[in-house]
Amino acid sequence: MPEAHTVTSYDDDLRFLTRRLSEMGGIAERMVADAVSALVNADTGSAQRVISEDLLLDNGEREIYDKAFWSSPSASRWPRDLREIIGSIRIASDLERVGDLAKNIAKRVIAVRWFHGISRAIGPRSRASGELALTQLKEVLDAFATRSPDLAKMIRDRDDEIDAIYTSLFPRTLTYMMEDPRNITACTHLLFCAKNIERIGDHATNIAETVYYVATGEQLAADRPKDDDTATMIAPAPGSD
Amino acid sequence: MPEAHTVTSYDDDLRFLTRRLSEMGGIAERMVADAVSALVNADTGSAQRVISEDLLLDNGEREIYDKAFWSSPSASRWPRDLREIIGSIRIASDLERVGDLAKNIAKRVIAVRWFHGISRAIGPRSRASGELALTQLKEVLDAFATRSPDLAKMIRDRDDEIDAIYTSLFPRTLTYMMEDPRNITACTHLLFCAKNIERIGDHATNIAETVYYVATGEQLAADRPKDDDTATMIAPAPGSD
Repeated sequence: MPEAHTVTSYDDDLRFLTRRLSEMGGIAERMVADAVSALVNADTGSAQRVISEDLLLDNGEREIYDKAFWSSPSASRWPRDLREIIGSIRIASDLERVGDLAKNIAKRVIAVRWFHGISRAIGPRSRASGELALTQLKEVLDAFATRSPDLAKMIRDRDDEIDAIYTSLFPRTLTYMMEDPRNITACTHLLFCAKNIERIGDHATNIAETVYYVATGEQLAADRPKDDDTATMIAPAPGSD
Repeated sequence: MPEAHTVTSYDDDLRFLTRRLSEMGGIAERMVADAVSALVNADTGSAQRVISEDLLLDNGEREIYDKAFWSSPSASRWPRDLREIIGSIRIASDLERVGDLAKNIAKRVIAVRWFHGISRAIGPRSRASGELALTQLKEVLDAFATRSPDLAKMIRDRDDEIDAIYTSLFPRTLTYMMEDPRNITACTHLLFCAKNIERIGDHATNIAETVYYVATGEQLAADRPKDDDTATMIAPAPGSD
């Protein structure tokens, strides 16, 4: 029963949350690295690994949810401890979604034969955007481990780099589809993969905002752009870039 | 300061959270209804309205986050009240994302001229899926208002209806792209709109899970499918459906 908790056991609860989140973070990082490698190298082995790992994050989120709920800080430690609990639940939820997005990329890689022409032309941008998302995820997990608001803020403010790559990839991919209808299926899946990578970056940014809040009790100013620019894009004229 | 809170003022905080969430729910419903109407009828007026309303949900989420954090239930009311706080933050976050997705649909409708052929062929499925998402959102907000775990569970279990429509729309849309390259830009945006509607349904399902948890203290069993089936789809042979 929660009423029986002492401060010591509550400290144990918080340590459990931090340790479990760090494990989830490690799994999420590995899944994203494998998903990007699967996408760029058409590597179905990596893709299969991503799919099999997703359940670990689903279970992790449920466990953190349960533990956070049954923990009970004493009134004297409130509200600092409430921040830790709310923060843990939010970060677990973001990591679980990162796993879903990585798995979705992996399934598309397995389903679709990537044409070499597309891979050569678009691969480097996918790789750059995937690597950026992975770096953001790693850094934001470091920021959480050290409860560093400065690092969290820096990561949050860099969110537009991935968005810029995704934005540049969109019209180019539409052009490939128009040039040869045989590219349409692969390119459509590629666009969803690119969108997933951009969303993984968004979740890293969400985690950065949560870390800042846990560390300071303040929310970062809402000046971050919240939508992707491709929503207003049409294909360029043939021959243009 | 939180320490100065009395039980009465804490009750005021909870009432504030519930009222503000209900307002956010109303705005989200209106935005989804307008976005679906914009999509199905190529109605740029509705689309503009959706875009202008999104900021209301962003602000609502921030306000709920602040209020939840500074509220401080007495130890005797814990953990029931912690559930209310965690639940409010999760629901506000889901509603904010619903607004983002509706806005993204609206921006695509404004950017792209919908070809009549596509609209005639695919419009009814988009409408059906949009109306289902809207119904789910309305019902789940009712479930929250009445803290009904039964209604919440029923909504969660019905999530696959929207997914089925989205799944049927995907190969058909690829076929349209292959039949005429002039359809490619519009169809690509249409697929992202359909995906957004499916995601709105997912957020309604998330809210149902949160309502169940707030009302009972238990998590629903994790038997819900978590990914979309189109990740493994390729276009059908010409002439097939």
